[in-house]
This record gives sequence, C-alpha cells and structure tokens, in this order.
Amino acid sequence: MLGTISADWIAIEVLQGGALLQGWAIGPGGEVLAQARGTGGNNGGDLEPAVLELAGGWLAHGRATLVLVSGAMAAGLRDVPCPPLSLPLWPVPAKDPRLDLRLVPGLAQRARVKGMMRGAETRIAGVLAARPGWDGVICLPGPETHWAELSAAEVVGFRSYMTAELFGLIAPTGDPGPQDASDETAFAEALARGMARPQALAGRLSQLRAEGVLDAHPADAGAQLWGLLIGAELAAARGWWLGRDVVIVGEGRLAQLYATALAAQGVGTQQIDADMAALAGLAQARGLLRNQT
Amino acid sequence: MLGTISADWIAIEVLQGGALLQGWAIGPGGEVLAQARGTGGNNGGDLEPAVLELAGGWLAHGRATLVLVSGAMAAGLRDVPCPPLSLPLWPVPAKDPRLDLRLVPGLAQRARVKGMMRGAETRIAGVLAARPGWDGVICLPGPETHWAELSAAEVVGFRSYMTAELFGLIAPTGDPGPQDASDETAFAEALARGMARPQALAGRLSQLRAEGVLDAHPADAGAQLWGLLIGAELAAARGWWLGRDVVIVGEGRLAQLYATALAAQGVGTQQIDADMAALAGLAQARGLLRNQT
Repeated sequence: MLGTISADWIAIEVLQGGALLQGWAIGPGGEVLAQARGTGGNNGGDLEPAVLELAGGWLAHGRATLVLVSGAMAAGLRDVPCPPLSLPLWPVPAKDPRLDLRLVPGLAQRARVKGMMRGAETRIAGVLAARPGWDGVICLPGPETHWAELSAAEVVGFRSYMTAELFGLIAPTGDPGPQDASDETAFAEALARGMARPQALAGRLSQLRAEGVLDAHPADAGAQLWGLLIGAELAAARGWWLGRDVVIVGEGRLAQLYATALAAQGVGTQQIDADMAALAGLAQARGLLRNQT
Repeated sequence: MLGTISADWIAIEVLQGGALLQGWAIGPGGEVLAQARGTGGNNGGDLEPAVLELAGGWLAHGRATLVLVSGAMAAGLRDVPCPPLSLPLWPVPAKDPRLDLRLVPGLAQRARVKGMMRGAETRIAGVLAARPGWDGVICLPGPETHWAELSAAEVVGFRSYMTAELFGLIAPTGDPGPQDASDETAFAEALARGMARPQALAGRLSQLRAEGVLDAHPADAGAQLWGLLIGAELAAARGWWLGRDVVIVGEGRLAQLYATALAAQGVGTQQIDADMAALAGLAQARGLLRNQT
C-alpha cells in the first residue's frame, strides 16, 4: 500500500475486452496524481477486485471515492445517433465502502449494420472536448477498429472491423508490424494488393507459407499480413475516409500503420494519443456528474 | 496384435499436416484387407512409430512390407509442370526390418505465385488413373484448398487457399457449416456477399459479434463465415472455375459446401471421394514401382 495518494476521483479504462485495466488517480484540480496498469476482471461482477488491486492505494478512508470506468462489459449500451457521452452512468454496487463505482455506457447501432463499442465512445468524447463543434470521422484502431461519424456533437453512426483481432488469430506470432524499410515496402505493396484484391487473403496466406519453404529470403510475413488486412479494411470503409477529415485515436505502431495506409491514399490524418483521449473523456463524464448535483 | 492380416503392401495417407494418418492393408490382388486411422508423427523422423502403431498388425514377419505414404512433410517436392506422380519415391530408413517405407513427393510451384501441396498430388493421380487423358481443373478442399490445372496428364499449375484453416482460426467453435435450411440461406447470402465484397470480412465479423448481443435470433455465424470465406476464395480463383470442367475431390460437408457454392455460379461439378482418390493414387505409385523392377 502506497497510502500517500488520496485521489479526488479515479479514472479507469478497461481494455482488450476486459483483460487489461489502466487507471489514473486524479487530484482536486483535475491533475493526474498517479497512473497504473493491471489485469482486469472481465465484467461488472468481477470488476471490484480488479479495481481494488489497481487503485486501492489511491482510496481515501472514511469516504467513498468516485471511480469512473469506461469500456466495461457490464455497462449498458446507448443507441446512436447520440452524444458519445451522457448521463446516467451505470452505478455498480460495491462491497468496499470506499468505492463509488460507475460505468460509462457503450454505444449500440441497431440499424441495418449492427455494431457495438465499449470504451471508444469515451475516447471520442475526449477528442470532442478539445474541439467543440468539430465534425468529421474518428478512426479508433484497436482489437476492433471503429470508424465513427461525428456531426453536431453526436455520433451519427459507426462501423467496426475486427482487423487487429484477425491479425492476432492468423499471424503465427504476435508480429507487431513493419520493423524496417524493407518491411515497410512489403507493407505498402500488400496494402495496395489488399485494397485492390481483398479476396486474395486466403491465397496469399498459402503463398506466404510456401515462400517460407521455397524462398531463400522470404519477405516479412507479418508486414504483409498487416498490409493485406488493413488494405481490405480501407477498401470496405472507403466512404469513411475518402475526402473526409480523419482523426486517428490510437497508440503506437497500430495507429501509425493506419496513418501510413491512409497517407498512401492521399488522406492526411491527425493522430491523438489514445490514453489522453480516454482520460479527457472520463474527465468529461466527471464534469457531467458534477453539473448534475 | 491382430496378427491375422498379412498385407501385400500398405497404403498410408498423412492428413492435416501430420496430425492424422489413415492406412489400408492391400492384398495381392489389390483388394483392401483392412483400413485404420490413427494419430500421426509430424514428419519423416517421427513417421516410423506412427506407422507401426497404425499398421504394425498388418506386417508379415521375415520380410519387409512395402509401405507407401503420401502427404508426409519429409518427402521432397517436385516442380510443376509435371505428372502428379512419378519415380523416384523417397525411401525412409526404418529401424524395424519389417518396414520398406517410401514417401510420395509433393509438388512445388516456384513461378511468380509460390505454392506447395503434399498429398493432393496423390489424390490427383488417383483421379487421373480412372480417366486417362482427362483435362480440366481439380478442386481439392481441405485445410488448404488446392485448385490444380490438369493437361496432357500433367499438373500444369495450381493455386492454394487457406480457407478452411482460416475458418478454424476465426470461428469461435469448430462449426461444421450449414446445418439446416435457414443456415443454407445464410450461407448462400454470405457467399454472394463474400464474392461481391470480399473486403467485408473484418467488418462482417464485427457485425456478427454485435448481432449476437443485439439480436434476439442471430443468424448462424458459422454458416455465414463459411459463405464469406468460400465466396472470397471463389472470387480470387475465378479463372480456375469459370467456364471450366471442375472435379471436386473431398469429403463430407466441406466438399458439399464447395459444390453448392460452384453450383450457385452455374458451374456443375463432379464429386469424387477423397479417400478413394488417395487409395487409387497410392495404387498408381505401387504400379510405378512394380514396372520399374
């Protein structure tokens, strides 16, 4: 127990379908006092022990500290079109009296193309907080990549692609993507092929396997697979980026792959750090609660 | 030990990349005396114990019995264009003096589109044995599906698609495909979608997940996934079936899915049982050896 930090409130983001949590202890002026990552419980029922393990040291004694959680499976879903964030949040009964645990609802799209997002809505709210009135498309790469259309401060609709999850299932190793210049060339070529002939995936996988045996210096399979899969996604999501103002909210290499891929189509993007967006979104939720009381 | 069967020679097919073996004890007139299935050693080095476990009871004492094996990883590769089967076979040194173990080489395609097949070449030889001089396309569904072009008794070229392996990686369960009429409708619709918009795969996977939560009666995800993946394969392999004479060599539901999918494109197919083709191909190899001596 650190015991030295007493948070005004705590922001937590559930990641990777519940496998991972990250949290921030927030001070009374909105400043970040501490940050931590930990393994997650998978849903609301299991959430309390995971929250206590991550953030127990930030809890004051003698009062309940507000803990706002985005991305939790147990949170309800709100139907688009709607603002990315609005009250009520979902209170979760906690055994520990120091916890006032509330979940940010996800978004559901029940129109012809069904969709769900949990956590991305909070990142979107964080982006909007910094640029009120901004209209455009926000691309949120992750295990599922979401493309959300923002207009008049509402999520009008969204489309989701299991691209990175597919990569994880198919790739022999957890290859993170292009590592050097020759890999980048392989990525760019596969991207073009994936966009032009997305049906080639299963055939290209067989070829990569054969090249691994028959070629003396086989090209990097991971870079090619990323190119094929992101290329197919861009072909499918064309209406979401062609001639659009696109903001990418993501982290590290995956966000960079999307930016590179969109740049190859002549689409300039702006990248926003995913953690900063999540934290800003959770601060927005905190503000909504404060204004309510 | 059964001890009652003494095979003239033994035919073995290695399946699923080495995980499975099936074998036949063959009598002096070419008749099948017994059939068995077992788990496999993965390559030539491990093959002997797996062969002994499967077929040890069929071995005569006091002489070495010829055991012909197709599909083994340890066998060499012959470059297309070439006949599906030709001498030499690959002898494997065996510790057990009752074994005369020989492997049928696979085929390699080193042209622009790299490819390999191990075992399919023997099935192709079995098909050709029954119809000398036949030209056309043989489609061999399996973990990898091969499309082979036959002309003047040679495999001119082939193309491979990891479609069923992809299904196995992506599908939440080992769903075998459409089970009833409503599933067949879902398969047919997804097939059309997979052919027309193969780039939709990652997006459709996200939709299926959302439908599983949001819909009261979600459509069968397995049937849809088979439709999408086989549809994408048919779109990629169009030149291999459009206006062609196609023979499907496969078994059970997977072969039936390909036949249904091709029928929906107006392509009539003839189905040949995979086991019979393998056995006929191994008998052809036996004949080549006999003619040599």
